[in-house]
Amino acid sequence: MGVITGADYIRRIDQLNPDVWVDGHQIDGKISEHPAFKGVMNSQAKLYDIQHQEAIKDTMTYISPETNDRVGISFLIPKTKEDLILRRSMTQEWAKTSAGMMGRSPDYMNTILTSFAASKHLLEGQKNCFPNNLYSFYKKAREEDLTFTHTFINPQVNRSRFKIIENTDDIIAAKIVDRNQEGIVVKGAKLLATQGGMTDEILIYSTPGVIDSSYSYSFSIPSNTKGLKFICREPFCHKDSTFDFPLSSQFEEPDSIVVLDEVLVPWERVFYYDNVEIADQFKRKGAYTQLTLHQVVSRQVVKMEFVLGVAQLIVDTINTSDYEHVPCKISEIIVALETMKAFLISSEEKATKDEHGVMLPSINPLFAAINTFSKVYPRMTEILELLGASGMVLIPTENDFKSDIRDDLDQYLQANYRDAISRVKLFRLARDICMSAFGTRQTLYERFFFGDPMRLSNQLYTDYDREHLKQRVEELFLK
Amino acid sequence: MGVITGADYIRRIDQLNPDVWVDGHQIDGKISEHPAFKGVMNSQAKLYDIQHQEAIKDTMTYISPETNDRVGISFLIPKTKEDLILRRSMTQEWAKTSAGMMGRSPDYMNTILTSFAASKHLLEGQKNCFPNNLYSFYKKAREEDLTFTHTFINPQVNRSRFKIIENTDDIIAAKIVDRNQEGIVVKGAKLLATQGGMTDEILIYSTPGVIDSSYSYSFSIPSNTKGLKFICREPFCHKDSTFDFPLSSQFEEPDSIVVLDEVLVPWERVFYYDNVEIADQFKRKGAYTQLTLHQVVSRQVVKMEFVLGVAQLIVDTINTSDYEHVPCKISEIIVALETMKAFLISSEEKATKDEHGVMLPSINPLFAAINTFSKVYPRMTEILELLGASGMVLIPTENDFKSDIRDDLDQYLQANYRDAISRVKLFRLARDICMSAFGTRQTLYERFFFGDPMRLSNQLYTDYDREHLKQRVEELFLK
Amino acid sequence: MGVITGADYIRRIDQLNPDVWVDGHQIDGKISEHPAFKGVMNSQAKLYDIQHQEAIKDTMTYISPETNDRVGISFLIPKTKEDLILRRSMTQEWAKTSAGMMGRSPDYMNTILTSFAASKHLLEGQKNCFPNNLYSFYKKAREEDLTFTHTFINPQVNRSRFKIIENTDDIIAAKIVDRNQEGIVVKGAKLLATQGGMTDEILIYSTPGVIDSSYSYSFSIPSNTKGLKFICREPFCHKDSTFDFPLSSQFEEPDSIVVLDEVLVPWERVFYYDNVEIADQFKRKGAYTQLTLHQVVSRQVVKMEFVLGVAQLIVDTINTSDYEHVPCKISEIIVALETMKAFLISSEEKATKDEHGVMLPSINPLFAAINTFSKVYPRMTEILELLGASGMVLIPTENDFKSDIRDDLDQYLQANYRDAISRVKLFRLARDICMSAFGTRQTLYERFFFGDPMRLSNQLYTDYDREHLKQRVEELFLK
Amino acid sequence: MGVITGADYIRRIDQLNPDVWVDGHQIDGKISEHPAFKGVMNSQAKLYDIQHQEAIKDTMTYISPETNDRVGISFLIPKTKEDLILRRSMTQEWAKTSAGMMGRSPDYMNTILTSFAASKHLLEGQKNCFPNNLYSFYKKAREEDLTFTHTFINPQVNRSRFKIIENTDDIIAAKIVDRNQEGIVVKGAKLLATQGGMTDEILIYSTPGVIDSSYSYSFSIPSNTKGLKFICREPFCHKDSTFDFPLSSQFEEPDSIVVLDEVLVPWERVFYYDNVEIADQFKRKGAYTQLTLHQVVSRQVVKMEFVLGVAQLIVDTINTSDYEHVPCKISEIIVALETMKAFLISSEEKATKDEHGVMLPSINPLFAAINTFSKVYPRMTEILELLGASGMVLIPTENDFKSDIRDDLDQYLQANYRDAISRVKLFRLARDICMSAFGTRQTLYERFFFGDPMRLSNQLYTDYDREHLKQRVEELFLK
Repeated sequence: MGVITGADYIRRIDQLNPDVWVDGHQIDGKISEHPAFKGVMNSQAKLYDIQHQEAIKDTMTYISPETNDRVGISFLIPKTKEDLILRRSMTQEWAKTSAGMMGRSPDYMNTILTSFAASKHLLEGQKNCFPNNLYSFYKKAREEDLTFTHTFINPQVNRSRFKIIENTDDIIAAKIVDRNQEGIVVKGAKLLATQGGMTDEILIYSTPGVIDSSYSYSFSIPSNTKGLKFICREPFCHKDSTFDFPLSSQFEEPDSIVVLDEVLVPWERVFYYDNVEIADQFKRKGAYTQLTLHQVVSRQVVKMEFVLGVAQLIVDTINTSDYEHVPCKISEIIVALETMKAFLISSEEKATKDEHGVMLPSINPLFAAINTFSKVYPRMTEILELLGASGMVLIPTENDFKSDIRDDLDQYLQANYRDAISRVKLFRLARDICMSAFGTRQTLYERFFFGDPMRLSNQLYTDYDREHLKQRVEELFLK
Repeated sequence: MGVITGADYIRRIDQLNPDVWVDGHQIDGKISEHPAFKGVMNSQAKLYDIQHQEAIKDTMTYISPETNDRVGISFLIPKTKEDLILRRSMTQEWAKTSAGMMGRSPDYMNTILTSFAASKHLLEGQKNCFPNNLYSFYKKAREEDLTFTHTFINPQVNRSRFKIIENTDDIIAAKIVDRNQEGIVVKGAKLLATQGGMTDEILIYSTPGVIDSSYSYSFSIPSNTKGLKFICREPFCHKDSTFDFPLSSQFEEPDSIVVLDEVLVPWERVFYYDNVEIADQFKRKGAYTQLTLHQVVSRQVVKMEFVLGVAQLIVDTINTSDYEHVPCKISEIIVALETMKAFLISSEEKATKDEHGVMLPSINPLFAAINTFSKVYPRMTEILELLGASGMVLIPTENDFKSDIRDDLDQYLQANYRDAISRVKLFRLARDICMSAFGTRQTLYERFFFGDPMRLSNQLYTDYDREHLKQRVEELFLK
Repeated sequence: MGVITGADYIRRIDQLNPDVWVDGHQIDGKISEHPAFKGVMNSQAKLYDIQHQEAIKDTMTYISPETNDRVGISFLIPKTKEDLILRRSMTQEWAKTSAGMMGRSPDYMNTILTSFAASKHLLEGQKNCFPNNLYSFYKKAREEDLTFTHTFINPQVNRSRFKIIENTDDIIAAKIVDRNQEGIVVKGAKLLATQGGMTDEILIYSTPGVIDSSYSYSFSIPSNTKGLKFICREPFCHKDSTFDFPLSSQFEEPDSIVVLDEVLVPWERVFYYDNVEIADQFKRKGAYTQLTLHQVVSRQVVKMEFVLGVAQLIVDTINTSDYEHVPCKISEIIVALETMKAFLISSEEKATKDEHGVMLPSINPLFAAINTFSKVYPRMTEILELLGASGMVLIPTENDFKSDIRDDLDQYLQANYRDAISRVKLFRLARDICMSAFGTRQTLYERFFFGDPMRLSNQLYTDYDREHLKQRVEELFLK
Repeated sequence: MGVITGADYIRRIDQLNPDVWVDGHQIDGKISEHPAFKGVMNSQAKLYDIQHQEAIKDTMTYISPETNDRVGISFLIPKTKEDLILRRSMTQEWAKTSAGMMGRSPDYMNTILTSFAASKHLLEGQKNCFPNNLYSFYKKAREEDLTFTHTFINPQVNRSRFKIIENTDDIIAAKIVDRNQEGIVVKGAKLLATQGGMTDEILIYSTPGVIDSSYSYSFSIPSNTKGLKFICREPFCHKDSTFDFPLSSQFEEPDSIVVLDEVLVPWERVFYYDNVEIADQFKRKGAYTQLTLHQVVSRQVVKMEFVLGVAQLIVDTINTSDYEHVPCKISEIIVALETMKAFLISSEEKATKDEHGVMLPSINPLFAAINTFSKVYPRMTEILELLGASGMVLIPTENDFKSDIRDDLDQYLQANYRDAISRVKLFRLARDICMSAFGTRQTLYERFFFGDPMRLSNQLYTDYDREHLKQRVEELFLK
């Protein structure tokens, strides 16, 4: 079978008919036609179609080692540095079609599953672990080009540092409530499945730090599994018009709360359960962090390139480059972009093989990248606001341009190097990056994407090897 | 007559029936019932009603020296420091009802007109100036409690530092195209009349730096003057629900482009025209900056208090104060608030009388305040985002809570010290401050409120007296 | 007796002959002639002389209520807002003579002692407390114009958050080791007595948070008390030349470690001892914070004015104001200065009387001020560096200008508006603010002056009343 | 001949006997024994000695293609990416011995000369250009291991944006005043020759933007050339003690003003003269920027590693890692370090050959690096101050530890994991990085090292190719 088309994707999801709630209503028609999903599912479909374009076929796909079908490079377990570069090119090709605005283009989740498969040895011989389930499932996903979302965050009842999230009487965070012949039974909620309801499958697993083993598990189930419900947040695309909302109308990925009401997970879909140690270490010790961050940073670079392009077009349009602070602000974006590109290249250049032959990009530059991006991306959107100024607000709509006041708009909103309609399109685009409900959600997403910035900073403090640097100081100066 | 009620206000505007365009349509029914105006006009009406509340009557109004009617304190020309404190209390009383979110509550424009009246001597004996027109008009406004908007910014065709905005062939910025027996005739556009279309009058004047005298003028005309058109930007309140959009649904003040299609301004409404020097100096040398900034900073303080309250409620709700960085962030808001309060008090304490007996708050603290606020307010909204994290996005709607999934929401979105529905309300409120289309427009507004931050910074450099400080250094160390 | 002269001061200290160590040597001649003390003692002497200048006599002194002698206003317990303004003027008058660079001009310590005296009621009726000792000692200090240093910080063995500093076997932090008929006996060390050895007296007390009561005490002893030793840090004035080191040579205040080797403190000099609660609360609940911060902020304002003057002279001298970023940087200093001035005025304007009739400046603006200054002062010195650039390093000496290369220097180091020698003086002055050993110690001092910035931030979080602001949000939006 | 030893270097400079002035005195004995030069010349000598160490011989040297002697790798014109890595390793090896604190270790100037030689084709066939002189001189320098300084900045009389620095009547900036049979004659001054007087040669050239051709030239002359004078700034090492000043005493590189009093430059040492275009373009179009920045960034990485080591040792010593902000600050250093390392690796990985076969590291990451470092290095030193706090000031000297108070110091300055003497050494080291006169000069040096930060930012704006990014936006959204 191998890589699917956009039409395949749409058909598959519509047939699944998952239990999805939006603004107090359960979706009952085709999900792909619902206003909250239409735009983004259409964009996702385009991504799948691109895989079949002759010109970039080799950038996007490779020959499956088992079936000889063409499968997505996002499923490739890298064995060489060239494989890493292939993976990067694939991600960036997809990202370019969506200005880097789809945080959950399929390569993201495919990479996570692939990283799990690449680390299946960690499950071998461990209690309640099923590495073969995991690997078979990975192959199935690769060959059938399955779409995924995932969820692992527990509800935010109490974020206190010294909290105990687990509470036996009253189930909030999803936990295993039964183990029987058919599988495990899970009840409770998980937060924030982006694209929840518009994917074939949902991968559910626990975060590190679990104490009660009922909260430790990893499995994947189809989106229409009985008892599984997706409660979407308020949709952030208010209109279909690509003129009015060039990004929102195309790339608005819904986030949802996932409710599991005694969901039965069949054994063949369980990767591990009731094992606190593995829950703690599978992601941390496996290929997960390196491969996922490599995908993420590859996409972020494209997103930054996009913001830089927009920022420069604004400066050109209203002709502000002779204010000293304007080149300064653009340069700030350039430096940020070059920083992220350098982290990416450096992670590939210093990649090393693990004991199972998987080529892992170097963790330090990637971790520095993710620490950096959560700060520079919000600053980039702030720069857009500062450059666009009142132009970010004075934005007529598509309907305005189609009405009797068109002549006024053409006359009074013209810019030096751009006519009124094109100038308005540009500013609406800029606005959709940083000031629309879609845009601010994007910024928040990037702020917290890989976890709380303070936690990331702490993790770097803990993990970064600097013994030799202390030693060097001791030898030169403190002996 | 004196102060009006909310009902008076609504009736008056509805009767005016100005030429207002929203999303390609000309408003044809009552403007107060149009979705883009309903919420904010209702909030404005409440402000007028408050003036009549017995308990705060003396905070909001004073006895007109001419009619013995009660008129708004925003029209009071201050003669003593106590008058300044009265003015501050009035502004803050109004601001509290709208969380400081109405940048154009009536006291703002009333203060501007009052500052003009207080400086009418600058027009005396000058070419093409009519100080008596100005003063009579001020009294009429005070006695009839007229509502205003204003506009003075020219279209942003080319913001180049070395631009010449004036172009004789092709009219863009509004200019005088004729002077005849009845008055002056004005043609062209002005940008950004906030509340344009929902006020009795619009005050139109030129910015400093004009070269061609046709661009120098100051006048006020009713919103329904022939040839006057308001083109609103896209409305930022997407829903009526005060649950879903607690701020947008109430305080969304439309911004509009003002088009003057050969508008005749009768002589009695002209304050000056064809006088480049006065255009340059009337605002700068008069009471304008001091009185206006005093009103603005008074409001901003209330807005900051509101953000502080929300921020602390978030911390309490999800119980995060034991992370060291959380108290730090709240303290950052506290320091910012105390800073603005100190500027305000200091401006009053160091107020001085001008040669005509008007008590002017000290300019230095006010100017420092406005330089400060354009930086700290965006930071405060950023802190809200950082404190709220994913809680700012995972926000069910009023409809969700009315639907069958209510139980799930109650269970999975409960917080430690707040039930699910109250927690969601709090986070939706926080979101409406910083992440909704309304919220981001608020932030942009505060960034640029009194002009481009770079320009403000430059003005401070130019105007701030520091000769004596240089002298002190010379004497102590360089002799 | 009343206020002393500079000569009185010098004579008194030289006669004391305290046990002071500098760079491995015990000072044996007159301390006022030792290179590490000469400059600053001379500057201190000038401060005392100023008190006698006819023109500012009333700014600096008042008539003692008990002796009719003129005594220093720094000893005035304020009863009215005017008293606070008197206190501010006195501090600023002194600060102007030293560019705000003497953190320990006598008014600082006098204010602390005065604040203690103003709070003596807190000691009344408490165990092991001697309010009368305190008050008598205050009067003695006022009438004899005694100089003070103080010390309260414990050695920094382990700054861990969860440390226990008290260790019974091995004495490090100074503790009471005996109580006998004559007094208490204290042994151990305290850190950081600035001006240690060049004052009549040293005030020693414990910090809050003490557990073992042996570490709780407050007393004052003469600098030459038996068993008391001052170990100075390396002196930061390397040369006498006021040309080469205009600030270091005059205002370098030594810091010292204070060692108490079984020092006997006579009972009449003990204010309290063996009372953990009072150690915790005397400073916190008394007038200490308000009065001291009011003095501190008054001085800091003068220091900022000085830096602003120097910064502007640099810009003028090398003619850089037409770079956009230069006015921006100066404006940043101006805003910082206005902020601190506003805090000061606001603290006075909102001052309130305590139950004993002492007029206390408002704590909130002062606390915000101290949080602010520790950040803005380092930034101001950074701006100086950025403005001065290589001019901060290319600095010939007094000897260079006296040598045969004088002509080269005159020719090649001339500036547009200043000859070479005057330009070099200016840049050496700037350098002494931010780049000399003296300058960097000043910056560090201001960073940590009132405690660790993180601790200050936390204290603000804890103490700042904002219940009513939360309430306002609840009422408007969450009901 | 090939690489020299430290003794060779010392001997050669002492024999030159150049005209050097320090603090009003002309040096008359051996320069290597003068207090202002002793420490750094000794450190420089060690660098030369290292070249002969068997273990790292291949890291530091290669076989000369012409003489078969071992010559320094800093003279290697890179032809492959491996050559770039060789160059990096060599620089970092040298930098490690001096904690990256010698900005002018010989590889810096050698690299500049090598970059000039690699670009000699730019001089070919141009008016008044002598590419063969340049190349021969480069070979001589390589084979004889000559030391260099350079100078190109004009005196800072007037830094106005719109200045004209050239003034025919009164010579300030060095200019050609005669051209005769023997060579060109140069008169005037140049600023800031670091290590001036302690090198064999000084390379002198003009900056871009020259109008009068008399100011355009490039040549090298021996330090003892007739008419050449070095006026040193005040030395920043106040003591020999490596205990008291571990860095100052070893790495203090003097800066000097260079005065040329009608210096005759023989033709064979002239590389070009009287050619405004070449003055403008030789550095910009040649290998200069890439090769020099590659050396610079290589060194800066080692410097950052050193600061990281010191910072972590401080945290360990006083045990502060359990304050949340402390790991945060260390992580900030780690991210900065990883950023610079990534730029370096990325510049090598994306290196390309020019048309003459020279392998040039990619300019974008290097330019981003230099923009970044001027901001992060000062921040790193600020972090050191914040971590060290009062420990940075309370610093006894070597003499203190040798005196009778040793026991007090041992007792009261001990740290948790370090005895008093070792703790004091650590803090004195930290202090010498950021608070001594040496340290602050280092910081200033890094702030401005490759030019004014604003200028660097502007250059990035001008040079960075982003047409394709604007194009991408146009195609996706603005068509």
